Amino acid sequence: MRATVMYAAHDVRVERVPDARLVDPTDALVGVTRACICGSDLWPYNAMQPSEIGNRMGHEFIGRVEEVGSHVRTVKKGDLVVAPFAWSDGTCEFCQHGLQTSCIHGGFWGGTKLDGGQGEAVRVPLADGTLVKLPVGPDHALMPSLLTLTDVMGTGHHAALAARVAAGKTVAVVGDGAVGLCGVIAARRLGAERIIILGRHPDRISLAREFGASDVVSERGEAAVERVKELTNGLGAHSVLECVGHGEAMLTAVSVARPGGAVGRVGVPQEDDIPAGQSTFFRNITIAGGPAPVRAYIEELLPDVLEGRIQPGRVFDRVTNLDGVLEGYRAMNERKSIKVMINF
Amino acid sequence: MRATVMYAAHDVRVERVPDARLVDPTDALVGVTRACICGSDLWPYNAMQPSEIGNRMGHEFIGRVEEVGSHVRTVKKGDLVVAPFAWSDGTCEFCQHGLQTSCIHGGFWGGTKLDGGQGEAVRVPLADGTLVKLPVGPDHALMPSLLTLTDVMGTGHHAALAARVAAGKTVAVVGDGAVGLCGVIAARRLGAERIIILGRHPDRISLAREFGASDVVSERGEAAVERVKELTNGLGAHSVLECVGHGEAMLTAVSVARPGGAVGRVGVPQEDDIPAGQSTFFRNITIAGGPAPVRAYIEELLPDVLEGRIQPGRVFDRVTNLDGVLEGYRAMNERKSIKVMINF
Repeated sequence: MRATVMYAAHDVRVERVPDARLVDPTDALVGVTRACICGSDLWPYNAMQPSEIGNRMGHEFIGRVEEVGSHVRTVKKGDLVVAPFAWSDGTCEFCQHGLQTSCIHGGFWGGTKLDGGQGEAVRVPLADGTLVKLPVGPDHALMPSLLTLTDVMGTGHHAALAARVAAGKTVAVVGDGAVGLCGVIAARRLGAERIIILGRHPDRISLAREFGASDVVSERGEAAVERVKELTNGLGAHSVLECVGHGEAMLTAVSVARPGGAVGRVGVPQEDDIPAGQSTFFRNITIAGGPAPVRAYIEELLPDVLEGRIQPGRVFDRVTNLDGVLEGYRAMNERKSIKVMINF
Repeated sequence: MRATVMYAAHDVRVERVPDARLVDPTDALVGVTRACICGSDLWPYNAMQPSEIGNRMGHEFIGRVEEVGSHVRTVKKGDLVVAPFAWSDGTCEFCQHGLQTSCIHGGFWGGTKLDGGQGEAVRVPLADGTLVKLPVGPDHALMPSLLTLTDVMGTGHHAALAARVAAGKTVAVVGDGAVGLCGVIAARRLGAERIIILGRHPDRISLAREFGASDVVSERGEAAVERVKELTNGLGAHSVLECVGHGEAMLTAVSVARPGGAVGRVGVPQEDDIPAGQSTFFRNITIAGGPAPVRAYIEELLPDVLEGRIQPGRVFDRVTNLDGVLEGYRAMNERKSIKVMINF
């Protein structure tokens, strides 16, 4: 089969790899119908140390079940399924508490040992815990929005929950990528009164406004902090969604939070220290978040997608196929595209 | 009047200062009857840059109202009152939400402009928002426990709330000082199933056990983390109370938290970065806390103190008067005393 493999920074190849196949009786074999490229794929795209084996790429996919292992009970051949970006058993201590990204027996797609979503097929471990059957066909018009349930929509929702977004709150969203935009949707969905997006790309800002952002702050750093303060009577935001991951964004996020507020961070941190530990302490800022347990959120968000109340699929502004994956990485890396969908 | 003034590290003096007096119509003048020395006083005691003016010390006191300004309504001359370690108006945006330590018009005792608790009298700004009348006399047997409501008991409670302690949870308390010990009381009071204290001073550990600690970890650093993991089936604690403030303690605190867990930090951070930002991210650890709004907690904790259900006053293992304050600082700094009470 064909799949996407990254060998080093800026060295992404689509090539022949061994066919995905069942290994364990709890596996399902899924033929991918839709996948996408994630903003987090750009971190290794810009920084990966060269590897001879390469890393299989892609952690967001929808597909058709082609075969299941003898222990699989919840999905069967022919089902259209959506896969969260982490696989999980659904039964361990952490899964029971809705934190499937910390599943004791689970893990993440791709790398050197597992298939990735940016390929023709994927062996899905722990299929019963991982996959969710979709009640529509593979070419349904809502497919882009359904595809966001694999990661970015659930991740934006996680940021909003971690930041304690609720009715009447003032929310700041740091980052106008696909996750930040989904964070706007999530904040609006949870009843935020005011949503300030911090970003500077006109196409993204425009979409953020359509998703419910009430204010735009295009400044950066200290100037951005000042601007958010001006917009909030000098107090700052109750809830801040950090959707970027680098240190400056995190510093902005904690700085625009008001005393007693919360920062929900979902951008993969590129530095190990969290900045402003004293300032956040003296202002009683809560810092929460991490990899979103999107598996826990699929059931909650699915009705809103199916009934059209939220349209996160609008973050896809480019559609390609496996042959266009390299160009897709480039377009996203150069900020020419918000998010690229891959059709199979 | 006489009061405690710190001029530099290890240079604490009890000396004559101008008498406390009313300045604003919202002030009360309080004659101090009990005060104490705080673990946080030891940070400047060990590190203060020399100052010619000096800083007035003490932020924990109970006293008798001697005079009130014309706008004061809730306390009157003769009342015995307890003061939280921060004064606040009780009406601003943050006070209304129970975060009096961020009061827009409030502040902290001592320093160069205000009286401190370790002196004979204190001008209390915003007396209506700040002071709470006590229903007992100044020599009541519960005075030590009531005095802890000014800071350490409320601070331990804040750590427990920030760490989301609840019935059935496994809690780790980092630090066996007065705040850590009050954290044990708070965790027990909130229904924790298991309370692991990390500390190594036999007298403090013994008290922690009496307060409800079920396990003791006397190792430090990596070894302490391993030991907590062993005690918790390899998972770590749901809730961690960080009651020290230096970087190593914070690193231990975040490391012993289980995925999805929370760290409530109340130790004043001595470094600006929060360590292990990636590890805490990937495990979805929440980091919360800060200066405790003890004013918000006095009413909640007072009945438990008055009815003897909690006995935080047992953290005082030395009683002195103003003449013994210097020796009190030394004893606490050398860990010969957990906490020193000052009688007037």
